[in-house]
Amino acid sequence: MQTLETLLNHKTIRNYKSDPIPQEMLDTILEAGFRASTTGNMQVYSVVVTRDEQKRKDLCKLHFNQKMVEQAPVLLTFCADFNRFNKWCEQRNANPGYDNFLSFFTAAIDALLVAQNAAVAAEAYGLGICYLGTTTYQADKLIEFFNLPKGVVPITTLVVGYPAEEPGLTDRLPAKGLIHNETYRDYSPQDIDQIYKEKESLPLTARLIEENQLENLAQIFTQKRYTHKDNVHFSKVFLKALEDQGFMNNDL
Amino acid sequence: MQTLETLLNHKTIRNYKSDPIPQEMLDTILEAGFRASTTGNMQVYSVVVTRDEQKRKDLCKLHFNQKMVEQAPVLLTFCADFNRFNKWCEQRNANPGYDNFLSFFTAAIDALLVAQNAAVAAEAYGLGICYLGTTTYQADKLIEFFNLPKGVVPITTLVVGYPAEEPGLTDRLPAKGLIHNETYRDYSPQDIDQIYKEKESLPLTARLIEENQLENLAQIFTQKRYTHKDNVHFSKVFLKALEDQGFMNNDL
Repeated sequence: MQTLETLLNHKTIRNYKSDPIPQEMLDTILEAGFRASTTGNMQVYSVVVTRDEQKRKDLCKLHFNQKMVEQAPVLLTFCADFNRFNKWCEQRNANPGYDNFLSFFTAAIDALLVAQNAAVAAEAYGLGICYLGTTTYQADKLIEFFNLPKGVVPITTLVVGYPAEEPGLTDRLPAKGLIHNETYRDYSPQDIDQIYKEKESLPLTARLIEENQLENLAQIFTQKRYTHKDNVHFSKVFLKALEDQGFMNNDL
Repeated sequence: MQTLETLLNHKTIRNYKSDPIPQEMLDTILEAGFRASTTGNMQVYSVVVTRDEQKRKDLCKLHFNQKMVEQAPVLLTFCADFNRFNKWCEQRNANPGYDNFLSFFTAAIDALLVAQNAAVAAEAYGLGICYLGTTTYQADKLIEFFNLPKGVVPITTLVVGYPAEEPGLTDRLPAKGLIHNETYRDYSPQDIDQIYKEKESLPLTARLIEENQLENLAQIFTQKRYTHKDNVHFSKVFLKALEDQGFMNNDL
């Protein structure tokens, strides 16, 4: 089945051709996104489409200079958005109560399901995609950049374009290490060794360990890629953005 | 294209046949889930599969007695999971720094992309799905029910099974009301009227307004479906769950 093939052959693309994406194709990709499930059919999300070259260059800087951000013709920034819904409520003599963390998280779920549908649709067209985790790190700066009003928070960004590379499938942990039947069975030390065995024995892993001059792959994550210091810093940035955008009023 | 058809024809199913889902089919659905993009290829998620009849009945109660929860043969509870990754780090003499909000949100994004891929894969097999928003409301109770250790938080649940109904497509807001080109263009009162016009004029809307004896659809959301009081209550529950599961240490 083509749908399963699309899903099973996903590869993140980090090098793009500059060829533009036809408007009709992009419209269908977003339409496919908007068919995703949404809490109570509220559709509490928005998508900001970036095509403008200068804006892509500016966003490239904001997204930690990942070159593909200015290279690819389209960026889709998916936002949790209660602004539109709140305005509708206020205009209809209804008092919106969506200024809290639960409402934010509901809207974030909505936005992420739309994003993943759009990613799958783009890949069905032969386009490549890459998610940018930097969107939450730079939430405050993206709010300013896109002029996002209260009630709107950027959640994730998809880079979309025609691939200029053909990478193989990325390694994944064995499925049985990710699935729990009926109840959560916590991992023994032996389970952990078993689950990470293949990943740790990849040539890529050996190369990374050598490049980073560390003992093992886990240390590359904790000391280089996702450090405690960075995580704490970006936790503060993101929580502050939630507060500034009006989503942290968690009392009656 | 079949993939686009699958995406564009999504319908939430709320009535299911009791026919079981073949194991091989479920395996492929989850495998398709696990191919989704994941931050730094960390795969910081787990899926709890519920098939057991008694457990489905118990979960039905936890999910506010939505009958489909016990009717459908399979429930998939997608969790943000740093427990496995933390254990791996500790076993490798690496000091994990993933006890903060940013790490939680990263893992939640991971879990939601997996869930949406699984939803699309299930629909490609002719199965029906429904997302349960109650998963975050009942996070504390689900943590107990599934015996989730620190580092694990339930994010969303998919009900999966053979459909016992054939609903039409659900209405959606016009795409142009959800898309912002280059920058966020805030909504004027006229924009809001235009965006919600079709939804407000549906026969379903008229019926709901009459049943609820309220002035309009917006009031059904604010006064019946998603009230401020409930949102604040469930915000506290969910934030407490994040704290209990070790994700709210946001200082160095």
